[in-house]
Amino acid sequence: MGNLTRRNFFKMGAVSAGALALGTTAANAVAIDSKGVKYDEEYDIVIIGSGYAALSAAITAVEKGNKVVIVEKMGRLGGNSVINGGLLAVVNNPKQKKEGIKDSIDLYMEDSMKAGRYINHPELLKVIGERGNDALKLVEKCGAKFYEKLSHLGGHSVPRTYLSANGSGSGIVLPMLKYFQKQPNGTIKKRTRFDEFVLDDNGRVVGVKVREKYRFDKKLEDDDSENKTGKVKYYKAKKGVVLAAGGFSRDKFLREQQDPRIPADTDSTNQPGATAGVLLKAFELGAVPVQLSWIQFGPWACPDEKGFGAASNFNINATFRYGISVNPKTGTRFMNELADRRTRAQAMFKVIKETNSYPINICDQTAVDKIIPDIAEKALKSGVVKKFDTIDALAAAYGLPVGELKNTIKKYNDFVKNGKDTDLGKPVEKTENVQIITAPFYATKGVPKLHHTMGGLKINTKAQVISSATKKPIPGLFAAGEITGGTHGASRLGSCSIPDCLVFGMVAGENI
Amino acid sequence: MGNLTRRNFFKMGAVSAGALALGTTAANAVAIDSKGVKYDEEYDIVIIGSGYAALSAAITAVEKGNKVVIVEKMGRLGGNSVINGGLLAVVNNPKQKKEGIKDSIDLYMEDSMKAGRYINHPELLKVIGERGNDALKLVEKCGAKFYEKLSHLGGHSVPRTYLSANGSGSGIVLPMLKYFQKQPNGTIKKRTRFDEFVLDDNGRVVGVKVREKYRFDKKLEDDDSENKTGKVKYYKAKKGVVLAAGGFSRDKFLREQQDPRIPADTDSTNQPGATAGVLLKAFELGAVPVQLSWIQFGPWACPDEKGFGAASNFNINATFRYGISVNPKTGTRFMNELADRRTRAQAMFKVIKETNSYPINICDQTAVDKIIPDIAEKALKSGVVKKFDTIDALAAAYGLPVGELKNTIKKYNDFVKNGKDTDLGKPVEKTENVQIITAPFYATKGVPKLHHTMGGLKINTKAQVISSATKKPIPGLFAAGEITGGTHGASRLGSCSIPDCLVFGMVAGENI
Repeated sequence: MGNLTRRNFFKMGAVSAGALALGTTAANAVAIDSKGVKYDEEYDIVIIGSGYAALSAAITAVEKGNKVVIVEKMGRLGGNSVINGGLLAVVNNPKQKKEGIKDSIDLYMEDSMKAGRYINHPELLKVIGERGNDALKLVEKCGAKFYEKLSHLGGHSVPRTYLSANGSGSGIVLPMLKYFQKQPNGTIKKRTRFDEFVLDDNGRVVGVKVREKYRFDKKLEDDDSENKTGKVKYYKAKKGVVLAAGGFSRDKFLREQQDPRIPADTDSTNQPGATAGVLLKAFELGAVPVQLSWIQFGPWACPDEKGFGAASNFNINATFRYGISVNPKTGTRFMNELADRRTRAQAMFKVIKETNSYPINICDQTAVDKIIPDIAEKALKSGVVKKFDTIDALAAAYGLPVGELKNTIKKYNDFVKNGKDTDLGKPVEKTENVQIITAPFYATKGVPKLHHTMGGLKINTKAQVISSATKKPIPGLFAAGEITGGTHGASRLGSCSIPDCLVFGMVAGENI
Repeated sequence: MGNLTRRNFFKMGAVSAGALALGTTAANAVAIDSKGVKYDEEYDIVIIGSGYAALSAAITAVEKGNKVVIVEKMGRLGGNSVINGGLLAVVNNPKQKKEGIKDSIDLYMEDSMKAGRYINHPELLKVIGERGNDALKLVEKCGAKFYEKLSHLGGHSVPRTYLSANGSGSGIVLPMLKYFQKQPNGTIKKRTRFDEFVLDDNGRVVGVKVREKYRFDKKLEDDDSENKTGKVKYYKAKKGVVLAAGGFSRDKFLREQQDPRIPADTDSTNQPGATAGVLLKAFELGAVPVQLSWIQFGPWACPDEKGFGAASNFNINATFRYGISVNPKTGTRFMNELADRRTRAQAMFKVIKETNSYPINICDQTAVDKIIPDIAEKALKSGVVKKFDTIDALAAAYGLPVGELKNTIKKYNDFVKNGKDTDLGKPVEKTENVQIITAPFYATKGVPKLHHTMGGLKINTKAQVISSATKKPIPGLFAAGEITGGTHGASRLGSCSIPDCLVFGMVAGENI
């Protein structure tokens, strides 16, 4: 199957498009010559992907009067955007003003650069800081609703994060989808896979070759190179193409090249379609690879369920902010539960290696009362989070040394009381004096899972994809969201992907 | 100038080759169709580059009876290989056996993985460990001579490093060049730039488009995209092409994409031709980018001279092994002078930032007596290393607090005597009891300079370039040396690049 290359696809495509003249160059075509193509459908703008970045670009572009098509290879729309935590960091946002929280673009950039080990591309970060409120207005216009309280995520100096009212990205994506579907000039193609770019003689992207009725097969070793399903079609893109196909956390091959320590069976919070096919195709067109080596693990996942699951949101919102994470053998804390993701994941992997067991994340009823009821209900219902009347019962259930655990909790509660964690530097002054006191108590096993690929295509501040040959934009090609690289550097801060996707999707829609 | 793309070159090339039929697909050709090409010259194997990897591949292939051409864009042969330190780590080598040093492939791999932050590709590392002695035999057969003593470089558990008899890579490269030039089937083309791959209908690399009489222009912002010089020629490569064009430490654009903290004016130990042109062209053909984010600074360079200069070898061989590096304001040591390069470079950058001045590297006459006289003579002659009769004179010359410096030296000498550095963990037990006692004393300013790009093309253990589309080798395409990625992970150990280049060059020559 591995022999089935894009080049073979190209031949099929060329034939089906009656462009036999091109057959002779099939062997070395990175893209299809527009002169040989009979288009099946014509649009102003073709958008690859259907998550935050794609929808933000699509809505912005369609409202400017463009004919826009969204191309999604999977049977379900929304990519990872629809299954994630729905957390959206916005600098100088209205809720901050109401709560009297002082924030600034510089502070947001410093937080992001610190987490990103200072290799972030500052000019891109700045755009996200400056346009965050515009992105917020866009999704609220579509009908997205948010929890009344701001969330305070690890690595952020201040609370600046909006949380979708239903505690999930679906609370943002579904209204955006509905809004776009209402537009007369908006079309959505599910189960339609991008295969090739169509270029004119000046190297401008003027269309795409796709396969409709595509059936993604997660049982294949490499769906991108092995899957032959679908019927070839050509879409014209008069004004250009926007790549918003997401990251490659589920691409076993590419992620292992960047970090061989990641075995093929490593779980990810991402949907199975998060492969590198579109990204690698863009490299063939001369797009510049940026910081592909940096792959992020989400520290708040649970080994008792697959993927993002129900525990992740519970840990993000309850245990890590208002509670603690302890070593399963010693019952003691081992990390600042609000440190950036990379720091926490590394600390957890160390514990898992040393104890050959999983850290236990713990909080009490006061914490749960502070979060969206849905999140706790889902987590308890799925059984990944458990409820206990006493610390003794909790300790017994997870085999924790109860005496040590009680000491740990007492010590932590004192830190909260005194507003300073002298052990691990958790910013307890920002945890609203929530101590671990009030029964029932909640606990879950913790494990880091592959969550986000920081690297990708180099774009400029107009979301144009840069060419390695000319160091200038590739005409007609734009990109936004996780398929791009540089914004987050070595490690992305929580709730900073959604603004990245929404802002640069919007910017692409404005500039294309 | 930036508008001058490879695609335009392609048109020129196609025309000059009388392949007008291809004009219609110029806009989207990643490579040239062999059917349209009239070859100017025919070879079995075309090798891009003329350093260690290129020469090792060329000699191995030519001795199998192949007609081989070496294509070098610069006016000088040997790339960086001819200007570096000539240090070659070989596991279980004859000198180790003579000196009774116990080594193993596992120990070498562990040393390399530790420096590489454990993201090295182990299968490639293993090949270097297993074939090192074969590479050593190859260069000795060519006439390369080595210093009688093994060197012990930072990050290596045991001394395992051969040093070229003249203390420079030229002592290895020039004999290899002479050896290859003697071969009736060997051709070398200087000032000849690789532009395009020629492919057949199966996507096999069967030739190259080059420009002869190319004049590299380091004054251009980006020579690869702006330089129009030279006359287009087509070389047939019956058996394939080997990419041995080196790293991209001098490519201002690509290195800044990976780490924006590296300003365009940052000095590098590499020759000006070390740009990313060939690497990026291979990505357009579908080669897989591996760990491009990791760029190494050599901690042993000097701010008083350009490039690798004369001080680097002096610090590698004398001050860092047999002496100390001190903070210019406090006169105290701040790092293990034999730690891996990344650790040392980070420690030095910290000192430079804090003191706004450069660390001072110091050793005494006993140390200098242990190294190749050429190295010390060159360094003193160029004035970057200075000689002093007393520590007081040395301290005065660099504005070091003399009392503190004397305490530091006494403390260090005691560590050497006792065989343990309880401050910074330098393996002083391996420094042959050399203390800083015997006048005259030597000193030089230290600064890290861009030295090596760890990332590059994904190859397998046969040096075949892997395709992102098929996950299998690209037919007819091989690569070796710094243009490949994965061997060294996040940070390369000193003296491990030459064996990487020589071994995989040899492997390419064997398998092509």
